[in-house]
Amino acid sequence: MKIESVDFFYLAMPEITTEADGSQDALLVRVTAGGHSGWGECEASPLVSIAGFVCPMSHGVCRPVGASVLGRTIESPADIARIAAEVEYNSMDLLQAAHTFSGVEMALWDLLGKVRGEPVWKLLGYSASHKKTPYASQLFGDEPHETYQGAVKARKDGFRAVKFGWGPIGRGRVESDEEHFRAAREGLGPDGILLVDVGQVWGEDVGAAAARLAALEATGAVWLEEPFHASALEAYGALARRSGKVKIAGGEGAHNVSMARHLIEYGGVGFIQIDCGRIGGIGPAKKVADYAAARNVTFVNHTFTSHLALSASLQPYAGLADHTICEFPFAPKPVAQEFTAKALQRDGNGEIAAPDAPGLGVEIDPEGVRKYLLDVEIKVSGRTLYVTPELI
Amino acid sequence: MKIESVDFFYLAMPEITTEADGSQDALLVRVTAGGHSGWGECEASPLVSIAGFVCPMSHGVCRPVGASVLGRTIESPADIARIAAEVEYNSMDLLQAAHTFSGVEMALWDLLGKVRGEPVWKLLGYSASHKKTPYASQLFGDEPHETYQGAVKARKDGFRAVKFGWGPIGRGRVESDEEHFRAAREGLGPDGILLVDVGQVWGEDVGAAAARLAALEATGAVWLEEPFHASALEAYGALARRSGKVKIAGGEGAHNVSMARHLIEYGGVGFIQIDCGRIGGIGPAKKVADYAAARNVTFVNHTFTSHLALSASLQPYAGLADHTICEFPFAPKPVAQEFTAKALQRDGNGEIAAPDAPGLGVEIDPEGVRKYLLDVEIKVSGRTLYVTPELI
Repeated sequence: MKIESVDFFYLAMPEITTEADGSQDALLVRVTAGGHSGWGECEASPLVSIAGFVCPMSHGVCRPVGASVLGRTIESPADIARIAAEVEYNSMDLLQAAHTFSGVEMALWDLLGKVRGEPVWKLLGYSASHKKTPYASQLFGDEPHETYQGAVKARKDGFRAVKFGWGPIGRGRVESDEEHFRAAREGLGPDGILLVDVGQVWGEDVGAAAARLAALEATGAVWLEEPFHASALEAYGALARRSGKVKIAGGEGAHNVSMARHLIEYGGVGFIQIDCGRIGGIGPAKKVADYAAARNVTFVNHTFTSHLALSASLQPYAGLADHTICEFPFAPKPVAQEFTAKALQRDGNGEIAAPDAPGLGVEIDPEGVRKYLLDVEIKVSGRTLYVTPELI
Repeated sequence: MKIESVDFFYLAMPEITTEADGSQDALLVRVTAGGHSGWGECEASPLVSIAGFVCPMSHGVCRPVGASVLGRTIESPADIARIAAEVEYNSMDLLQAAHTFSGVEMALWDLLGKVRGEPVWKLLGYSASHKKTPYASQLFGDEPHETYQGAVKARKDGFRAVKFGWGPIGRGRVESDEEHFRAAREGLGPDGILLVDVGQVWGEDVGAAAARLAALEATGAVWLEEPFHASALEAYGALARRSGKVKIAGGEGAHNVSMARHLIEYGGVGFIQIDCGRIGGIGPAKKVADYAAARNVTFVNHTFTSHLALSASLQPYAGLADHTICEFPFAPKPVAQEFTAKALQRDGNGEIAAPDAPGLGVEIDPEGVRKYLLDVEIKVSGRTLYVTPELI
């Protein structure tokens, strides 16, 4: 089969706010080949990712992503890897390329799985899709009692694990952060799994991060996530050497396999969190999962958006029985909920797994797409490089 | 002064080829504040970098670059650093942001220098702009005799140092690469400075790179540049431990200070090459220069395009007297030559220096801009986010 078309659909809520909620818009990707189609999703900044696919070439290694995808053969996982390598080389000077290609790569796996009648995790070489414990990802409240209420609500909704992120943490006194950690623990109960995400708030300031370690350990937090800038390997390493029982987590900013590997090797993280919508798709995420598993580092998906992205992000470690924690979009915006026909369901134990269905096993709901679809047009020298495609 | 406007001008040759020549297009940036204006240049993929400035916000830390620039105060170098930190944080999930902001940041320095009547290198804290030995950057010939001729021509043009890059190197037998290195040395003469750039051809294959070390040493090559993928720190480190007299060079792919620092710390490079059009501008490049100088690593600019980019790229290490090598666009395409009014001139010894003139000291030629300017239009939901601005 030849790749015939790659279509991008930019969906967004009518109003986008400055909260750290990545589910407010989405870039859906449809790839067709040989009469089949597959779907994927890029993680952020839809307009810029579209531009990365259609832009004019700047020179031999700054080509648009489309130049390494359209017309190529897709028959096997090896073809996907070959196309990925072409994109990496031919677009080495196009920084956005990895984000653009991520959604395309997912769609290629989905398409191939549908053609073969197999789930993507089987195509990746796994023999089973193991259950994962989803954690409800939510923001810290402005006040500790709101954090407490968030924890209580998540437990009521059947989540044993909860991650609190962002909000006031790291922006005020250590004591006030401690109050939030304690409120979260109180709301979760003693057997709840508490995870803390601070969204790069300390830049490279190891001391500021270390000042919170005692409180995190006292409240039994399993990990401290993204204390620093995604590339601050030295700071990660320094904190990891002091963090004791609290493991450091990070990796969502990785836009290639090397970056994730360096967070493990130089940054000393105990949990490596990969967003398939940023790292270049499912193939590179699987490489990170293999690498992590061989080094006693736990692989975790990073997913804050739709269940299409969730399914894609589960595939790379579906077969790793010991890597059980999984990020679960707890309260995504309607746009992220409505463009898929059916959500991944938690079972009676509150657990989920990558679907046992062909491809990514997630159907697109055209009505949901239409409802949030934006009209986009990009013209260069009078030539239309992109216009929102037809959905049918 | 408040930043009133940021205008992008996408210039390109009528035809873009797949050769590894980054001077085939340009993204010129004009910033105005308080009745003054400054100019900068982004390095690659103009359309995608424009989109990174004007795109709709996706969420709180995926804002367009423009959101952290327009309306901000610019009175001092500290203001530029503050704006840069805002962009880094507010656009952390927008991968292209660093490339987009690079040209804007340069323009801010140019503007501030013009307002104060001082060259940028003075604003950076240097007391002198030291002479640099420019190397003529050119591609290897397809055949050794073409490489030889390129070397002879560069010497005739007064260049003592020449860098050969890309072409057939690493794509065939070791022996054929050796012939090219010998041809280059022969053409340069025994006192010429020979530099070799292989454009990431070996991915992460340390053995393939190491197989060329003996020939490089025998022909007196000073450095081997970009043997691997920009993020392949482990491969860089492994090769550096075996490379003997031939130093490893790299860094042009760095899109933040951390990446450059890691190439030094983990990758063991002897020369760190920074492109101000990619790393976020002149401020972060100066941080790399300081870091390198303190560790006996030599800072080198990476510049393959215009003399505006060349001036910007010289500023961060203008005051480092011992860091003398400088990349010089040897045969840029007409577009890269014609939008500046006057080129930086080599002196009687063939040396150049960052201009002793306010700002970047490079004037824009409106005629040259108009000649190569492309019409671009970006619309989302019926709203025009970008249209090629007026030049006056």
